[in-house]
Amino acid sequence: MKRKEISHTEHFPLVMDAMTSRGLLLAAYTPDGRANAMTLGWCMLGGVWSMPICIVLVRPSRYTCECIEQAGCFTVNVAGADLDEACLLCGTKSGRDGDKLAEAGLTVEKAETVEAPVIAECPIVYECKVVHRNNILPPELADELQRWYADGDYHHIFFGKILAARAAQDAAELLGS
Amino acid sequence: MKRKEISHTEHFPLVMDAMTSRGLLLAAYTPDGRANAMTLGWCMLGGVWSMPICIVLVRPSRYTCECIEQAGCFTVNVAGADLDEACLLCGTKSGRDGDKLAEAGLTVEKAETVEAPVIAECPIVYECKVVHRNNILPPELADELQRWYADGDYHHIFFGKILAARAAQDAAELLGS
Repeated sequence: MKRKEISHTEHFPLVMDAMTSRGLLLAAYTPDGRANAMTLGWCMLGGVWSMPICIVLVRPSRYTCECIEQAGCFTVNVAGADLDEACLLCGTKSGRDGDKLAEAGLTVEKAETVEAPVIAECPIVYECKVVHRNNILPPELADELQRWYADGDYHHIFFGKILAARAAQDAAELLGS
Repeated sequence: MKRKEISHTEHFPLVMDAMTSRGLLLAAYTPDGRANAMTLGWCMLGGVWSMPICIVLVRPSRYTCECIEQAGCFTVNVAGADLDEACLLCGTKSGRDGDKLAEAGLTVEKAETVEAPVIAECPIVYECKVVHRNNILPPELADELQRWYADGDYHHIFFGKILAARAAQDAAELLGS
């Protein structure tokens, strides 16, 4: 999809709405070079270290966690309502078991600034290089959050420096605003 | 200042611009009940644990860090260009040494949802309850970030559940968009 450079702050309400409605697609190459993506429900944007930053939270049991650890970069792709089913599939299957992007009918483009796949069908993409990673600390979690960790598997938190943010000209329409 | 409830995603570009230009005002009560604020340059907004979250980074040497640890809540106040000097002062003096809000000509209102001060002169405010806290992990920092920590003092990262986000009707004008 043709996109132009935007500020990382543009379209934020649309991006958060898409995240809440169907999830975003967090994409990275696998250690053996295949494109993979998982559906991402928790993401933050802003500025840290005086640079644009995108934070994503990934449970260590997820294959994507291992992929990002090894690749050191990722993309966050914002999907429109036409990709509801693809996002559902990418959120329930594991890339360990095969090419779920193909199964979901998604195709891949090269990112412009990092070695990570971009989902061609998504109107907005953030290209990110990992500049920090830390973890959820179980003793520091409020009681109301414990229910998310009944099986442990506490999230790794990846801090991605946003090297590029790009959107299709008609991103707002495509995302159904 | 009179404000109405907004979505935490509204006005995001304005808020990030204000942060970059003059900083935001991160406010909390001191352990002995005085209102205090520091100027905040690093902040993120988004969704985690299926709730609106505001992340702020505070060095442990800062008095505000101790205040937030004890109070368990804070507000993030978005200042307009008329508060350039007040933000400069709140970024350079410590609340340990006196009432810097008074010195900066800032006045305080009660928050609606948490026990934290709101800066009356700020057109936008986020009221937050701390639901998690973790730390910057030195071995996990990219080389390009090491320069921020020549003296150690690695940031604490507070994850605030946004209980209310409110903006003045003319917030965009007041913030100089």
